[in-house]
Amino acid sequence: MMMNKQAAILIVGNEILSGRTRDKNAYFLACALKEIGVLVKRIVVIPDVIGQIATEVNTLRHAFDYVIVCGGIGPTPDDVTRPAVALAFGVPCEPHPEAVRILHDYYKERVSARRLVMAELPRAAALIPNPNTGAPGFAVENVFVLPGIPELVESMFAHVAAQLAHAPFVELEFPVALAESEFADVMDAAVARFPAVEIGSYPSCSAGQWCCVLVVKGADAAQVQAAKAWLHAAITARAEAMREGH
Amino acid sequence: MMMNKQAAILIVGNEILSGRTRDKNAYFLACALKEIGVLVKRIVVIPDVIGQIATEVNTLRHAFDYVIVCGGIGPTPDDVTRPAVALAFGVPCEPHPEAVRILHDYYKERVSARRLVMAELPRAAALIPNPNTGAPGFAVENVFVLPGIPELVESMFAHVAAQLAHAPFVELEFPVALAESEFADVMDAAVARFPAVEIGSYPSCSAGQWCCVLVVKGADAAQVQAAKAWLHAAITARAEAMREGH
Repeated sequence: MMMNKQAAILIVGNEILSGRTRDKNAYFLACALKEIGVLVKRIVVIPDVIGQIATEVNTLRHAFDYVIVCGGIGPTPDDVTRPAVALAFGVPCEPHPEAVRILHDYYKERVSARRLVMAELPRAAALIPNPNTGAPGFAVENVFVLPGIPELVESMFAHVAAQLAHAPFVELEFPVALAESEFADVMDAAVARFPAVEIGSYPSCSAGQWCCVLVVKGADAAQVQAAKAWLHAAITARAEAMREGH
Repeated sequence: MMMNKQAAILIVGNEILSGRTRDKNAYFLACALKEIGVLVKRIVVIPDVIGQIATEVNTLRHAFDYVIVCGGIGPTPDDVTRPAVALAFGVPCEPHPEAVRILHDYYKERVSARRLVMAELPRAAALIPNPNTGAPGFAVENVFVLPGIPELVESMFAHVAAQLAHAPFVELEFPVALAESEFADVMDAAVARFPAVEIGSYPSCSAGQWCCVLVVKGADAAQVQAAKAWLHAAITARAEAMREGH
């Protein structure tokens, strides 16, 4: 069975930490990575501070198969992710010839020294094309760097996904009409019975009504199906027993 | 001048990492903390794994004035945040007499051993009242632990906020009708001129139209006002010069 690769997402941005902007990128990336069976195991949001970004990139790239970084690759002084990633890898941040060409083609006579700052990348970075606004993202080894603007992240991610190892991963869920405490022991039994399957219970409240969703997931589709069927039958039996007052 | 305290937010939940659920709590907390001048400097999302939670809590509680933890304090087997925080502090996780009493009062004859699991807390924890569903959150030293359900987090946060040190913090912003590269040098000058003020530029795209917002913030209201006025005047002059073709 193919193993699922594990990824971390690093969001760089004071505007997320301050609550000025509600992050969309971590959620988009978590969903998009799960689609291809890459499992996100850590999300970190940090300020636009060069040393912190470099330290975090180095921690994450050694701990995970892939690191997806979003934010801070524009031309203003608060955009420091490009030199920070260069620092993390111990390479110079310098004009990338292909990125320079792309920016010249995109801006034509409006190209400027300031705009060309966006072509200063860690040496030997591979480019991630940006079909909307020219300035590319880039990858160094297992670190993929995208802008912070969600529309751009979404349009650029397909190019990243194509470079990652895909593997099957199945997630099933069903609603439960009991309180968590009324079926938690059934979950205990399922956890013991299906060790390769991850099982979670998610209560939520909508318009004053509480409900609960059980989520069953894993790399082995047959095991996930079996665990779901077993849990569903056991919880249905529990609900009937409770209705009959046992 | 009062110093702003710094906080980290720790979100515990497989459902956030997998993209099943879009996190609301980090955004809510970032906004609510900024309201009282507590500055969020790190947000981390990790799985429901007891050792990882304990390690992360210990890292964050030593690095920040406050740590707000959300998620994993219910009664199902994937709820491991209570014992994890006890592990982090090296204290037993045991029935908390006041929490036990609260759950008895809330559930009355429906109380059960399973429900009482939610009263097993790190020894000497202080309770955070839960006006909606009984089961309290808790605090140990500078670590405040809340549930994962956003409605509960929002109703319980006021009690946490009352225990944190409040301080002034001002954030101003204004829209700019230029591309970032056209005023980035003005930002450089402002950064040099107002070192105590944080300045950020946030481009966004709405219905195909690009616009940019400049954000100016800091603890010293007079400095923030001055920086905003200076930047606004300088960028307005730049825009006029560009219109006249200089």
